[in-house]
Amino acid sequence: MPNISQRGEMMPPSPIRKLVPYAELAKSRGVKVYHLNIGQPDIITPKPVMDAVRNCKITILEYSHSAGFESYRQKLTEYYKRLDIDVTKDQIIVTTGGSEAIQFAMMSCLDPHDEVIVPEPFYANYNGFAVAAQINIVPITSSIETGFKLPPIEDFEKNITAKTKAIMICNPNNPTGYLYSAEEMNVLKELCLKHNLFLFSDEAYKEFCYDDKHHVSAMQLNGMENNVILMDTISKRYSACGGRIGAFITKNKDVYNTAMKFAQARLSPPTFAQIAGEAAVDLPTDYFEEVKAEYVKRRDLLVKRLNGIPGVFCPNPGGAFYAMAKLPIADAEAFCQWLLEKFSYKNQTLMMAPAAGFYATKGLGKNEVRFAYVLNCDDINNAMDCLEAALKEYKD
Amino acid sequence: MPNISQRGEMMPPSPIRKLVPYAELAKSRGVKVYHLNIGQPDIITPKPVMDAVRNCKITILEYSHSAGFESYRQKLTEYYKRLDIDVTKDQIIVTTGGSEAIQFAMMSCLDPHDEVIVPEPFYANYNGFAVAAQINIVPITSSIETGFKLPPIEDFEKNITAKTKAIMICNPNNPTGYLYSAEEMNVLKELCLKHNLFLFSDEAYKEFCYDDKHHVSAMQLNGMENNVILMDTISKRYSACGGRIGAFITKNKDVYNTAMKFAQARLSPPTFAQIAGEAAVDLPTDYFEEVKAEYVKRRDLLVKRLNGIPGVFCPNPGGAFYAMAKLPIADAEAFCQWLLEKFSYKNQTLMMAPAAGFYATKGLGKNEVRFAYVLNCDDINNAMDCLEAALKEYKD
Repeated sequence: MPNISQRGEMMPPSPIRKLVPYAELAKSRGVKVYHLNIGQPDIITPKPVMDAVRNCKITILEYSHSAGFESYRQKLTEYYKRLDIDVTKDQIIVTTGGSEAIQFAMMSCLDPHDEVIVPEPFYANYNGFAVAAQINIVPITSSIETGFKLPPIEDFEKNITAKTKAIMICNPNNPTGYLYSAEEMNVLKELCLKHNLFLFSDEAYKEFCYDDKHHVSAMQLNGMENNVILMDTISKRYSACGGRIGAFITKNKDVYNTAMKFAQARLSPPTFAQIAGEAAVDLPTDYFEEVKAEYVKRRDLLVKRLNGIPGVFCPNPGGAFYAMAKLPIADAEAFCQWLLEKFSYKNQTLMMAPAAGFYATKGLGKNEVRFAYVLNCDDINNAMDCLEAALKEYKD
Repeated sequence: MPNISQRGEMMPPSPIRKLVPYAELAKSRGVKVYHLNIGQPDIITPKPVMDAVRNCKITILEYSHSAGFESYRQKLTEYYKRLDIDVTKDQIIVTTGGSEAIQFAMMSCLDPHDEVIVPEPFYANYNGFAVAAQINIVPITSSIETGFKLPPIEDFEKNITAKTKAIMICNPNNPTGYLYSAEEMNVLKELCLKHNLFLFSDEAYKEFCYDDKHHVSAMQLNGMENNVILMDTISKRYSACGGRIGAFITKNKDVYNTAMKFAQARLSPPTFAQIAGEAAVDLPTDYFEEVKAEYVKRRDLLVKRLNGIPGVFCPNPGGAFYAMAKLPIADAEAFCQWLLEKFSYKNQTLMMAPAAGFYATKGLGKNEVRFAYVLNCDDINNAMDCLEAALKEYKD
C-alpha cells in the first residue's frame, strides 16, 4: 500500500473541528449546544443577492474568465472606491473564497522554505496553506493583556532573515477581533519598505469595525503599491460563506501576472456566486449599518458577561465578530471537551474554540478561548450562563 | 520592489491561452473565428440542473461540509453505482472542480521532488498543479501513429525511480480523445501493484465513449482499492464548467483523511453548484445518449474532413471531445498564430490548440494540433474549409 506524503502528515487538523465529535456527543446526550466556536454568521444572506442567482438567465454554465467576470471585477472597483481604495479591474483576480487568494499570494511570492511573519494568534488555516506551499510561518506573539495590539516592531526586526519574504496580517483580526490603527499600519509599511517585503493583508472583516473606529486598508498605504496584496472575500461581508468567492488584489504587475498563471491553471472561480457578489455591490449603503449594529450589541453583551465572570478576562475587540478570553483554567481544550462531554446547565452547554490552535508557538494560549459572536443576544446570554456555571463546577 | 517566487516564474502559461491576443486581432480585422481550441462545450446545461439552483430555498448561504453536502455525496453514490463503481459517501470529497481533486491527489500523495509518471501528450494544466505542488511530471511518450494508445510498459518501467509515487492518466484522454482498453487498464494495475504506486485517474470525460466502446474506470480494478484516486468533475458531463464542482474519490482511508485536511483548510466547495450536481444525478438516463449522438456526429465529420486534407492525419478518437491531428507544416504554433493574424477564407478563420504545450518532452508535437469539437457540424464544416484553404496558402 503506497504511503501518503510527509506534507500530508504535517497538515494540521483544524482547531475548530477537533471538538466536533464531542459536540455530537452532547447532542446524543440531549444537551443543546450553543455554537460560539465557528465564524459562520447567522445573518440572513441579503435577498437581492440570492435573487440575482435565482433569476440568472444562464443557458450554458460556462467557465468565466480566469480572473472572474469582467463585469464583476468592474463592479468591485465601485465597491472599493467607496472605501477609498483605488483599484482597476485589471488589478483584481476573483478567487474561490478568500482561501484561494491566500494560496495565490503564498505561491506567487514565496518559494519552499521561505518565511512569512505573522502576528499570533492567527487564523489557523494559514498553517494548512503554508504546509501546502511548503513555506514557513514565523510567529510574532501579541498578547491578550494589550488587547492583541501590534507587537513591538523590534520583535519583527529580530525575526527577519534572508528567507523572509512577507508579513501577513488579518485586519480586523480573526481570532482576536483586534483592529489595527493607522499608526500600526504605518509601522508595518515602513518595515516592509525597509526590508523589501510583501504585505499580505487579509481584510475579510473590513466592514466589521465598531465604536466609530475606521478601517485602514493596506491598499491605502502610499508608496506600498508594489508590496501589498489584498486578500478579500464576500463570505462574512454578505453572509455568503458557501458561495466561495473572494478576491486577490495587487497593483504589482509581476505579482498579478504570476497569480494569473495559478488562476488559469484552475480555470475559473465559481460562476453562480460571482453573480451574487456582483449584485451585493448594489445593496443599499445602510445594509452594513444594520448588520454592524447587531454585532455591536452582541459584542457588548458578550464582553460584559465574560468580564463579569470571576477570573475571566476579555479585551474589547474593535472589529470582526470574534473575541478572545482568558479563562481561570489550565487547559482550555480539556475544558471545552468537558463542556461537551460531561457538562450541562439547564440541559444546555456551549462550544468554544480553544485558542492554542491559533498560536504557532507551542504552549501559548492554553488558557484562552475564541468566541465567534454569531448567535443572537438571547443565545449569548444563555451560553454565558452555562459558562459561568461550568467554571464554578470545573476542576482542572 | 520585492520579487515574485521562482515557482511563480516556473508556472507555465496555458498553451490554449497564449494565442488569445491573436484571436482578438482576428476579431478586430472583422474575421469570424471558429473556436476549436478550448474544451468549453456549446451544449445547453440541462434545464432541471439550472432550475434546481434557481429554485433553491437557501436563506443563509452557509459553508457546506468540507467534503461537500452529505445529501450530494449520498446522491453521487447512486450515480457511480449505475456505472458499476461501488463507493460510499465517506469515500467522496466534493471538490472545487476537477482541478482541486488533482491538487488534493498531488499534495496528499507526493512530496516536493517526488515524481508522477504521465503518458504524454497530457492535459496541460497538470504542469501548473505540479509546479504548485513542487513535484515532477515524468512523461512517457505516446504516439499519434498508434492513435495514442498506452505506451509499452517497458517505457514506464525504465522511468520508475525511488521518487516515483504515482502514475496519472486521463481516460478518455484530453488532449488525444484516446480511450484506454480493459487490457491497458490491467497493465497499469499490475504496474502500480508491482511498484507500490498510486494510480491517479482523471475521468472527466467518462460518459463520452463512442462506437459502443466501454469505459473502464480505475475504481473498477480489483485489488487496487488502496492505490486508486479517482479525480472527477461535473464540468463536461453536464456542460457545467462554471459551477466548479468535482470529486476526489478513494477507498484508501489514509489518503482520504489526508485529503480531508486540505479540504478543511479551504473550508468548503461552492454551495450552488453542489445543488446543481445533485439534481443532475436524477436526469433521465437517455440524457447522455442524445449528447453522445451529437458528439459522435461531430467527431465523424471532423475526422473525415481532416483526413481528407492532403498531408493531414487524424486518428479516430474513442472518447472525450478532442482529436489530435498531424499537419503538413513544421511549426503548428506559428501556423495557428498566422491563421488568426493574417489569414481568412470567406472572411472566416479557425483557432486550434498547438499540441506542443501538451507534451513535456521538448520538441515533440510541433506539427500537431488539438481540436475540441464543441461546435455544431455546420461550424465544423466551415472551419475545415478554412483549414483546407489555409494549408494550401501557408508557407512555413
